[in-house]
Amino acid sequence: MSKGIVHYRTGDSLDSYFLIKTAMKGTASNGKPFLTLILSDNTGEIEAKLWSCSPEDEATFKSKEIVHIIGELSEFRGKNQLKINSIRPTTAMDNVKIADFIRSAPISPEEMLEKVTQYIFDMRNANIQRITRHLLKKHQDAFIESPAATKNHHEFVSGLAYHVVSMLDLAKSISVLYPSLDTDLLYAGIILHDLGKVKELSGPIDTQYTIEGKLLGHITIMVNEIGEASKELGIDGEEVLILQHLVLSHHGKGEWGSPKPPLIREAEILHMIDNVDAKMNMMDRALERVQPGEFSDRVHALENRSLYKPSFHEKPLDI
Amino acid sequence: MSKGIVHYRTGDSLDSYFLIKTAMKGTASNGKPFLTLILSDNTGEIEAKLWSCSPEDEATFKSKEIVHIIGELSEFRGKNQLKINSIRPTTAMDNVKIADFIRSAPISPEEMLEKVTQYIFDMRNANIQRITRHLLKKHQDAFIESPAATKNHHEFVSGLAYHVVSMLDLAKSISVLYPSLDTDLLYAGIILHDLGKVKELSGPIDTQYTIEGKLLGHITIMVNEIGEASKELGIDGEEVLILQHLVLSHHGKGEWGSPKPPLIREAEILHMIDNVDAKMNMMDRALERVQPGEFSDRVHALENRSLYKPSFHEKPLDI
Amino acid sequence: MSKGIVHYRTGDSLDSYFLIKTAMKGTASNGKPFLTLILSDNTGEIEAKLWSCSPEDEATFKSKEIVHIIGELSEFRGKNQLKINSIRPTTAMDNVKIADFIRSAPISPEEMLEKVTQYIFDMRNANIQRITRHLLKKHQDAFIESPAATKNHHEFVSGLAYHVVSMLDLAKSISVLYPSLDTDLLYAGIILHDLGKVKELSGPIDTQYTIEGKLLGHITIMVNEIGEASKELGIDGEEVLILQHLVLSHHGKGEWGSPKPPLIREAEILHMIDNVDAKMNMMDRALERVQPGEFSDRVHALENRSLYKPSFHEKPLDI
Amino acid sequence: MSKGIVHYRTGDSLDSYFLIKTAMKGTASNGKPFLTLILSDNTGEIEAKLWSCSPEDEATFKSKEIVHIIGELSEFRGKNQLKINSIRPTTAMDNVKIADFIRSAPISPEEMLEKVTQYIFDMRNANIQRITRHLLKKHQDAFIESPAATKNHHEFVSGLAYHVVSMLDLAKSISVLYPSLDTDLLYAGIILHDLGKVKELSGPIDTQYTIEGKLLGHITIMVNEIGEASKELGIDGEEVLILQHLVLSHHGKGEWGSPKPPLIREAEILHMIDNVDAKMNMMDRALERVQPGEFSDRVHALENRSLYKPSFHEKPLDI
Amino acid sequence: MSKGIVHYRTGDSLDSYFLIKTAMKGTASNGKPFLTLILSDNTGEIEAKLWSCSPEDEATFKSKEIVHIIGELSEFRGKNQLKINSIRPTTAMDNVKIADFIRSAPISPEEMLEKVTQYIFDMRNANIQRITRHLLKKHQDAFIESPAATKNHHEFVSGLAYHVVSMLDLAKSISVLYPSLDTDLLYAGIILHDLGKVKELSGPIDTQYTIEGKLLGHITIMVNEIGEASKELGIDGEEVLILQHLVLSHHGKGEWGSPKPPLIREAEILHMIDNVDAKMNMMDRALERVQPGEFSDRVHALENRSLYKPSFHEKPLDI
Amino acid sequence: MSKGIVHYRTGDSLDSYFLIKTAMKGTASNGKPFLTLILSDNTGEIEAKLWSCSPEDEATFKSKEIVHIIGELSEFRGKNQLKINSIRPTTAMDNVKIADFIRSAPISPEEMLEKVTQYIFDMRNANIQRITRHLLKKHQDAFIESPAATKNHHEFVSGLAYHVVSMLDLAKSISVLYPSLDTDLLYAGIILHDLGKVKELSGPIDTQYTIEGKLLGHITIMVNEIGEASKELGIDGEEVLILQHLVLSHHGKGEWGSPKPPLIREAEILHMIDNVDAKMNMMDRALERVQPGEFSDRVHALENRSLYKPSFHEKPLDI
Repeated sequence: MSKGIVHYRTGDSLDSYFLIKTAMKGTASNGKPFLTLILSDNTGEIEAKLWSCSPEDEATFKSKEIVHIIGELSEFRGKNQLKINSIRPTTAMDNVKIADFIRSAPISPEEMLEKVTQYIFDMRNANIQRITRHLLKKHQDAFIESPAATKNHHEFVSGLAYHVVSMLDLAKSISVLYPSLDTDLLYAGIILHDLGKVKELSGPIDTQYTIEGKLLGHITIMVNEIGEASKELGIDGEEVLILQHLVLSHHGKGEWGSPKPPLIREAEILHMIDNVDAKMNMMDRALERVQPGEFSDRVHALENRSLYKPSFHEKPLDI
Repeated sequence: MSKGIVHYRTGDSLDSYFLIKTAMKGTASNGKPFLTLILSDNTGEIEAKLWSCSPEDEATFKSKEIVHIIGELSEFRGKNQLKINSIRPTTAMDNVKIADFIRSAPISPEEMLEKVTQYIFDMRNANIQRITRHLLKKHQDAFIESPAATKNHHEFVSGLAYHVVSMLDLAKSISVLYPSLDTDLLYAGIILHDLGKVKELSGPIDTQYTIEGKLLGHITIMVNEIGEASKELGIDGEEVLILQHLVLSHHGKGEWGSPKPPLIREAEILHMIDNVDAKMNMMDRALERVQPGEFSDRVHALENRSLYKPSFHEKPLDI
Repeated sequence: MSKGIVHYRTGDSLDSYFLIKTAMKGTASNGKPFLTLILSDNTGEIEAKLWSCSPEDEATFKSKEIVHIIGELSEFRGKNQLKINSIRPTTAMDNVKIADFIRSAPISPEEMLEKVTQYIFDMRNANIQRITRHLLKKHQDAFIESPAATKNHHEFVSGLAYHVVSMLDLAKSISVLYPSLDTDLLYAGIILHDLGKVKELSGPIDTQYTIEGKLLGHITIMVNEIGEASKELGIDGEEVLILQHLVLSHHGKGEWGSPKPPLIREAEILHMIDNVDAKMNMMDRALERVQPGEFSDRVHALENRSLYKPSFHEKPLDI
Repeated sequence: MSKGIVHYRTGDSLDSYFLIKTAMKGTASNGKPFLTLILSDNTGEIEAKLWSCSPEDEATFKSKEIVHIIGELSEFRGKNQLKINSIRPTTAMDNVKIADFIRSAPISPEEMLEKVTQYIFDMRNANIQRITRHLLKKHQDAFIESPAATKNHHEFVSGLAYHVVSMLDLAKSISVLYPSLDTDLLYAGIILHDLGKVKELSGPIDTQYTIEGKLLGHITIMVNEIGEASKELGIDGEEVLILQHLVLSHHGKGEWGSPKPPLIREAEILHMIDNVDAKMNMMDRALERVQPGEFSDRVHALENRSLYKPSFHEKPLDI
Repeated sequence: MSKGIVHYRTGDSLDSYFLIKTAMKGTASNGKPFLTLILSDNTGEIEAKLWSCSPEDEATFKSKEIVHIIGELSEFRGKNQLKINSIRPTTAMDNVKIADFIRSAPISPEEMLEKVTQYIFDMRNANIQRITRHLLKKHQDAFIESPAATKNHHEFVSGLAYHVVSMLDLAKSISVLYPSLDTDLLYAGIILHDLGKVKELSGPIDTQYTIEGKLLGHITIMVNEIGEASKELGIDGEEVLILQHLVLSHHGKGEWGSPKPPLIREAEILHMIDNVDAKMNMMDRALERVQPGEFSDRVHALENRSLYKPSFHEKPLDI
Repeated sequence: MSKGIVHYRTGDSLDSYFLIKTAMKGTASNGKPFLTLILSDNTGEIEAKLWSCSPEDEATFKSKEIVHIIGELSEFRGKNQLKINSIRPTTAMDNVKIADFIRSAPISPEEMLEKVTQYIFDMRNANIQRITRHLLKKHQDAFIESPAATKNHHEFVSGLAYHVVSMLDLAKSISVLYPSLDTDLLYAGIILHDLGKVKELSGPIDTQYTIEGKLLGHITIMVNEIGEASKELGIDGEEVLILQHLVLSHHGKGEWGSPKPPLIREAEILHMIDNVDAKMNMMDRALERVQPGEFSDRVHALENRSLYKPSFHEKPLDI
């Protein structure tokens, strides 16, 4: 496979494989059908139009198919677009597989799982430890491959686990500076806070909200699961209530989805760490192809800001 | 017992029994201790000062004691105040009991319980019916004596049950007009929506928020209980999820405490009916002693409005 | 006429009459003119493109013309679109009339008028009764055919009258439950609250705001009319002021168009009933073609929510 | 009469006449009654306590009585308070009258009325001129003595007329700079915009909101009056609608009491001029006793700001 | 040159010169490239499509080129569009120059500069005068040709100077009416308030924000410059601080870009005058082609209002 | 000196020295003057009333005097109050000094200064390093003793330096986890972000806002100083602009006092770290005397929340 799609510039020719993420049919102004394809590889995605397509084309070029394309990078209304010169479906002969076209966390699932497990192992409060371990084990497979969101941040395979691991490390170094924090609570809160997403979202590819996700949301789902888990484990100390509160309040306030604001020190810090990690992820992403002395595109999830890369900072390595 | 405290006017003499709701000690500007008493009967409450009180007075005139007072209604900074001429504790000889001094719903607990039970009996969806019956039975005793709030509306003994019964009747007549409503869902939603208050609030007298109430709130508490109940009953149809959504969304939006807005027809109507009944209760209360052609005091929970009683409306009956 | 447009699915062929609601000329990317037609029948509307149209086409296919079309239901950017295979204007021979292509209230105008008249007849306060009767009579013809809005809810022929009749029935059943309500005031408020729309809107087809509608609005228009009516009738009791207040405050607060919030019990209930009826109408509309277990499109006027139809609810009857 | 009350400083002795604005009875912590008096002269007002007052005192020292006081200016919780050494009611012998104790506009009523009349005289559009003249004449007596508000700005005798005259002069000089403005409309809008206050407020002394004022407000009252006036005068040009719109929109937006925002050039300017004049009046008032290099008290109606008087500005003249 | 572009109506033929403001390449649905041109003259601008353009066309028809076009005014989605029948680049033979195609202030730069200089000359406070003169001189060339904004109001050559001159005249006539205003401060504040725009914006043609403009903004830039100027001039009176405050606070509040609200009388008036002049400019612009009895398009910067021109007002002169 | 004031409970007798923070005179309801004293030691403060005080008392018991008191801890309206049995001024014989009664940072000024200096020493970008060192040196004495605020957080002697040191350590550990951060920028931003407070606030005891503080604020003050410093040092790289942006944007958004939001990665992290450290400080303070299983008082600066200490957490050490 050649270099990834994000590394091309307007005017470049390309000859590559892509995964079709979505394919939408439309009717052109000359009355003929065409397809709008969102093509992706593991570095990003790009839109392409397949003009005057036949019914066979429609049947062939569908979501989740890998195709081979020869074309050229052009621009339309200020956005990159791929001009298709030739396109064909792939066969076993091409020796390509979906996994190679999907963005995922920079650490392996096994390594991340081991790290989380170690944090649980180090807990001293048995109630907190048992509930956390129980719920992680219950959802382990989904946890390890789930994205953390459908868009905005950590929206890739294993994004959820990667977000959790980053937050745990952040929590650890902050706890050293503020010794009044109860690390058992803080680590447990981090591990559980978004775990409900394994039921809120449909999985790592073409991620959608489930019905339960839309009607209850990952916060309520996980608060319920903590209650259930403690029933099953026969635990009824105040730790149960506190863990539920940590999950419940981690969005910070009502209009952001938390019916109660953080009322425990560790809940407040959990909310802030969540924010720090999400924003660092979004900002790194927004700036990854920006040249020194230039501004990024506007980022909706960062209050529509357009970020700046100072002129004395280094150029992106890959260009 | 003479006429209730709300029926006295400035300058009236009175000779009555009262329940001490709260007693607070202070120090007067002459350096002597005094007590601020909130005295109540089943029509309302009034503040009184007991100047220059002795340590014995402090020990005697405490919260939840019934006292006999001879005094006079005066006014201080635009608010009524009771001027105490004589005060004494009561004994068995006085033949008074706390229940007589507490405001409660105008219908008997038994009657209300029967009514709610009938609504459950009429449900046709077995899953909805069983979950609702199970949870009502589980919390029946608390449900029947709990207030619906610590203040603002239905904040009296059995206030919760009274609020629920009013809403059920309202829902019934609305459903006749809008036949697309699923009455099973709507009735179940009404019965369950505030049931978490039996754990959020401390009980009918001197009502306080519990720790669980402050950290999770009645909405989350009841959503959890619905999940648990369905586990115990072996029910796993979508009805469980929908009932949880009804309770979860009944405050209407995030900043009012619902992490999800109503997404089901019945959830929206539940939210609106809740509002109608609460507001009618608050408005009736605010206007009950207002003369035709005059405005009520400002009511904080009604967006600080001061309500008007048209001059062609009848005078309050009891004056 | 065949089944209505809302009952077709993508791929269906159709051979039907439609009313052209609007026709807009554009220039295609090949430089040729085309027409965008909004076609409607009494079940809904659909967009169609007439490519490469001649000047004669433009003159023929105009707003308010009925046409006969043979075509096919296709999809463009996730929205239905009608692909025109043939189109022709209609003549007397087709035996079609505009009235058959317009959505209207499910009850006849005569029936609705009789119902409103009965409510007025039952009023006991002569001042309220005379003002209400006077204004209804004055605007009776427009009232009976006006929509209640240009979009969102009750935006069809006789929509206003239908909205008023629903609210009256709702008010009647609520008043039984809350006897402190003055039904004369409440019914009069309902009948008058939106009556100013007969001057704010341009009429039932292709509804627009009038200049007076934009500069004053239906609330101010009707408050003025109540003042004028009472002058003409020689009535000067406080009822005039109260009726004006009911109309003035029925949007609930300043940012929703009411310079005064409801300060009378009946004004508050009027505001809430208005809301209940409008929302039921919008929700029924949004869900009418949604399958059980699925979500509706987002509805702007319902705070952009996408509503859910539980999987155990019935399928729409007409599919 | 000696210098006005605003010119005294803490510790000063004084021997003056005052008008009692309000008198409120309270009970001191020693159980004895006392009076809280708000005393005023034409420069401002001050609070005083009359301790251990007798029933005769209560009957004598009432609202709207003029009293003679010997006392001393002291301070209580950061606010000035008048310490009463002796107080006595006045008689004909004292030769004092209420008018001398009330703040009023710096120009005479006659002069202001003449000025407004001249502006009307200069109008070229007969419809606008006739409506404006008719309404001014109708409310002339009340207009000339009404305050413009109960507090915040121009809350003195003839405050309304003074506010209108200032705005007219301001409008005149602005119109010279922006010739696209229609001065007939602008002047008429200014003269009518607050005229409804003659019915919204109870009059110049101890100003209160009337029932009509609370339920409709001065904006709606005057919009109605313009409609009525044009009926009586037989005028039905668009001028009527535009004048109503000017009054309706002069608060600028919904949450400030205008159901329609300004949609005419003159309406926008009217709103802005109203603001400029009100703010200048409030700021001059707030700074009138502030020394150069110091800040004023916080002013609620100026978004709670505390204004600064630069150190190179002059001292207040009267100190 | 023929009449300006704003004076054409749909269907008109035209044969004119235009300045290409921007040229953007796109791909049509038939796969061929086309150019979207924004064409301008000194009365306004219009969009045009150049279909099926060759690489030579792309190279020829670029931003800042003057072209000659024969075409026709058509309409697309409710907006005017220019249909190009023929287009050619211009040469020296055409005898056209860029300056003739750019909108600018109605007064000459020299005249405006003289006016501002006179206002400075009249100042009595030497510190204020020297700082103002120093900064004006420093930025004089840019000041005299800078627009006041990239869009919304005064977005033309010399727009900044024109805005300042209008505000000065407005301030002068207001100061006559409110003698407590310090005109030295007010005039200096007006001259300096937007002067930072000479560094915030890139200049009069194709105006963009500079990096400094995006990261600091014109307010902070000018506050810094005032500090620097007073250092250089050896001035350290409180005037420096006050001038900085005037500039700092002139947007009125935090969410509008001023970290401190106006705390000086002159700062408040500066903010209001800025508003009056900007709004008059926007309203005149919005209404300049609107016929009496009609509404303008919605104006985003005027809270999305659509303004009305009363039917008794005059028609635009140029139609 | 005995144990600190925060360690006493209602009913405890005490015999201690206190620093009078403020003394306010009032008049009791018996007409006699009294003093309200705010007494402090290095653990906290308490209110006391000195009834019937003589003119000599007033002259003796003033702000910043140390007194010896024998008394008793009582309660008034739910707040602690000190009942004074005897009070006397202190003399040299008492051997007490103000410094012992003032709360200060837990690390010595020298140690903090050394730490900050080391962070500067480690910077690799010479421009950033020189500007930061220059400004720290310029304000070193004030920096080392200034509080970080007048209330809410770090409002004690050296609070500013302590806040900066905590943030630096936090930044260091976060930078390890997010290697894309430029630590030079981040450390410089932290050291400078609040340095303007040395001019915004009046100093460590009885901290007030200065005139410059009120009219410009610490953000604008420091942005100006950075500009000046770079002039003096002859630095004009983009680092100057970026450092100004870091300080300018550190409050996050307009309504919180930053005219530009953070547009650089390090600016966003600076804002978040500032928040984390301030909140940890406030929460630790709020919870320091709360028993496990109980809630703190409401904290205004924490959105009025009342924080909870879980029942399985340890008791405060000092009780």
